[in-house]
Amino acid sequence: MFIRNTWYVACTRDELHALGDKPLGRTICNEKMAIFKGPDGKVAAVEDFCPHRGAPLSLGRVCQGHLQCGYHGLQMGVDGRTVSMPGQRVRGFPAIKAFAAIERYGFVWVWPGDQDQANPDRMPVFEFLDHPDWAYGGGLYHVQADYRLMIDNLMDLTHETYVHAGSIGQPEIDEAPCETRVEGDRVITQRFMQGIQAPPFWQMAMRAQGLDPQATVDRWQICRFSPPSHIMIDVGVALAGHGGFDAPADKKTYSVVVDFITPETESSHWYHWGMARNFKPEDTDLTERIRQGQGRIFNEDMQMLQLQQENLSRSPERKLLMLGIDAGGVQSRRVIERLLAQEHHGAGA
Amino acid sequence: MFIRNTWYVACTRDELHALGDKPLGRTICNEKMAIFKGPDGKVAAVEDFCPHRGAPLSLGRVCQGHLQCGYHGLQMGVDGRTVSMPGQRVRGFPAIKAFAAIERYGFVWVWPGDQDQANPDRMPVFEFLDHPDWAYGGGLYHVQADYRLMIDNLMDLTHETYVHAGSIGQPEIDEAPCETRVEGDRVITQRFMQGIQAPPFWQMAMRAQGLDPQATVDRWQICRFSPPSHIMIDVGVALAGHGGFDAPADKKTYSVVVDFITPETESSHWYHWGMARNFKPEDTDLTERIRQGQGRIFNEDMQMLQLQQENLSRSPERKLLMLGIDAGGVQSRRVIERLLAQEHHGAGA
Amino acid sequence: MFIRNTWYVACTRDELHALGDKPLGRTICNEKMAIFKGPDGKVAAVEDFCPHRGAPLSLGRVCQGHLQCGYHGLQMGVDGRTVSMPGQRVRGFPAIKAFAAIERYGFVWVWPGDQDQANPDRMPVFEFLDHPDWAYGGGLYHVQADYRLMIDNLMDLTHETYVHAGSIGQPEIDEAPCETRVEGDRVITQRFMQGIQAPPFWQMAMRAQGLDPQATVDRWQICRFSPPSHIMIDVGVALAGHGGFDAPADKKTYSVVVDFITPETESSHWYHWGMARNFKPEDTDLTERIRQGQGRIFNEDMQMLQLQQENLSRSPERKLLMLGIDAGGVQSRRVIERLLAQEHHGAGA
Repeated sequence: MFIRNTWYVACTRDELHALGDKPLGRTICNEKMAIFKGPDGKVAAVEDFCPHRGAPLSLGRVCQGHLQCGYHGLQMGVDGRTVSMPGQRVRGFPAIKAFAAIERYGFVWVWPGDQDQANPDRMPVFEFLDHPDWAYGGGLYHVQADYRLMIDNLMDLTHETYVHAGSIGQPEIDEAPCETRVEGDRVITQRFMQGIQAPPFWQMAMRAQGLDPQATVDRWQICRFSPPSHIMIDVGVALAGHGGFDAPADKKTYSVVVDFITPETESSHWYHWGMARNFKPEDTDLTERIRQGQGRIFNEDMQMLQLQQENLSRSPERKLLMLGIDAGGVQSRRVIERLLAQEHHGAGA
Repeated sequence: MFIRNTWYVACTRDELHALGDKPLGRTICNEKMAIFKGPDGKVAAVEDFCPHRGAPLSLGRVCQGHLQCGYHGLQMGVDGRTVSMPGQRVRGFPAIKAFAAIERYGFVWVWPGDQDQANPDRMPVFEFLDHPDWAYGGGLYHVQADYRLMIDNLMDLTHETYVHAGSIGQPEIDEAPCETRVEGDRVITQRFMQGIQAPPFWQMAMRAQGLDPQATVDRWQICRFSPPSHIMIDVGVALAGHGGFDAPADKKTYSVVVDFITPETESSHWYHWGMARNFKPEDTDLTERIRQGQGRIFNEDMQMLQLQQENLSRSPERKLLMLGIDAGGVQSRRVIERLLAQEHHGAGA
Repeated sequence: MFIRNTWYVACTRDELHALGDKPLGRTICNEKMAIFKGPDGKVAAVEDFCPHRGAPLSLGRVCQGHLQCGYHGLQMGVDGRTVSMPGQRVRGFPAIKAFAAIERYGFVWVWPGDQDQANPDRMPVFEFLDHPDWAYGGGLYHVQADYRLMIDNLMDLTHETYVHAGSIGQPEIDEAPCETRVEGDRVITQRFMQGIQAPPFWQMAMRAQGLDPQATVDRWQICRFSPPSHIMIDVGVALAGHGGFDAPADKKTYSVVVDFITPETESSHWYHWGMARNFKPEDTDLTERIRQGQGRIFNEDMQMLQLQQENLSRSPERKLLMLGIDAGGVQSRRVIERLLAQEHHGAGA
């Protein structure tokens, strides 16, 4: 159950680059893809299935922008049509699927659904990614759970108190009420904590920003879901009484937690997580330290989600509760269902 | 195919204790349970499924006798009803299953079936467990085989000659006829070997008892099955000609091999094995040495049972032989089938 | 989909010998077999299923030519009939399957199908195996792929250029046309390369044969398929212009690549590979060096075939191309299908 006529993050630019002349094999929305750089250096994605004998093209290598099958040397073009094969006329070879692909914001994005509807104008905009005033660090986890369990997880940060008791959790999260609203296809869940002590991460950020880390602060968490399954979370603290999220720049410090959740199959997904921050963007050591800390924290969620998935798979008929704290996930799932219904009725995209 | 309205060993008291404030997750008769100590320190078992979002409660921790879910902090009571959850009224939350649990004889016992029928008076009695005149040592194996294959194994000790040729097997076992009888729901298979040399284990026990280890002895093995799947085996030697099993206390030495076989699924089980002995009960080193030896021996059965299970799963239609030596297992299975039929016809328990 | 009324290689003589008094358990054409040496030292194969309680006989040991079950000591004869069991009359025990087995050419061969049709006269003849003028070295791989994918692989050596680019591949293979013909149940695919430089392996062989390794040569590859799934490949080089394959013995050097492909299940097989050479047969170091090199090369094919199998299993309905270079595999599959149809219509064998 995933929207197909949309852009998903397939991998990072760096991940593809690190493979040199090898393509990357990855399954996105049940589509096995071989991702590579075409003749013009632009990213491309084709079905990971050689039309000759079914070998995975991702075992081959890229030769001047064509993907050469590692079995018998067939050369596949970015459009899914065979370019050449030793000793063969290839004109009659059946085409394989080609998927629209775009490199943007340091990621490779693919469109797994109807290719006629693929439209670069529908790429989401993230002004804080690939921007000189911001630094970004992140990573990738492969999670054996329905991607919607990760949406639930991120659209309800109450779990921080329990899952992340040792790092970013603090009792005030539980105590502050959260508020959820839907704006078109977007869902926003937010929570404000007033007049509290900053937790260690934010004390560090305050210090970096030239603020007194011991000062009383107002803290915010604003989780923003947008289809198909991107979640950006505005997080930060401001000196108490200056307007919180809306405080002047010199009274606050903040970041965006970036979550690109890409379905692999019905019960597994790729989770690209990271943080974009606009304080000390030039400090690459800090980027790496934050990245490692965030990696540890997000890793704590993995076991929970995977065992939750096992439980749900055992009892698929069982109804779950939908409480106030779950409203973010519940509303996000409704948006997905609505868009899925549109997609199936042809009104989609 | 297992009896459900009955008491099964779920774990040892020590295993639960070692977890501190963590619960124990274990599947018994296809029921996923989270086992923990309730507010009064009494053992409790509830379904391993948080009614909020299906997270496994066994990932949480115990707070003042309530089981706190590790995801969003819901607190579950021993009766399967939610006690509290941060920021929520929980009165309307659906209950989850709670299973009757008792701590006795150093084990935690659970009743996986109809809870209205759960009855502590139906707990079996084992006078040699948790008794100051007896010492007990044991262990736990997880076996990928139908629990009835383990019953077959233990109700026919002929296999000792082949599977355990290097330890407790001796040719006389094969040569002495075995005799099986049924007494109500109990099955007894016994074998007596007259005028033989004691094997190494019993020579050691004779020495501990002040008997001449080289003396000619009468040896016995009396396997006692009781439902659902407990097997106690009286084993011992007496100086020849003094009545064997019935010999006066100063002419013999003996133990009870304890086997609690608890189905996990249709094709796997938990096997708590051990030995209770009434010689030198204060010698904890001896307890540990016996435990290790027994662990090695029972481990030899594991591969056989697991590969036997694979063979049987491949050919479920195939008829097996039921020979005289198999009578113990065959009769035990008949008792189980009879009780199962009663259970299904509502006359059970 | 495999022919059953035929001889397959089950294992090597050495593999069985190395087990001492233990039998070898192996599945051939979905038949689980226990292979051992009978009372006369002749190889035997019986179903790996004890008629008593279904234990795998391959966990037992061989006692004077009978296979003793490791569970309760039943002794199984080479004909699938129980010979004895402690304390039992065995006459009425059901027989298990026995499979015709022959030791020849350093291999154990079994006939998995209708035993009435098992006929040693139908054993194929390989004059270069177990022959004093030839040396043989080889190995065994267990491949998670339909055995016919291995036939395709070996009946089309075009893949050498891509899969084995670092060892035996050379561009001329791609450039030389291949030619396929069918002779009854046999399929021959051959390729001749004229006036080329010998690749490293053949330079070594030329040196061993007393030929100038830098000389221009004619090279040949003649792949010979015979049912059910044996492939022998004549490979060699001759000094250019002396007739190639037909050149006089002192002008050429050659070997036979030996491939015995034995189905295990529908999607896995045992692959016995090796090389028989008639130059320097006494040089055992050379045999071992060639064996290791060949093992490395054939290992390169394994991943490709296994992932190709995964792709095909995902899309079983998908049509593959059948190009000129595929003719060897395509024709071999047709022979198999024809023989299978005969087998199913009772005209088989």
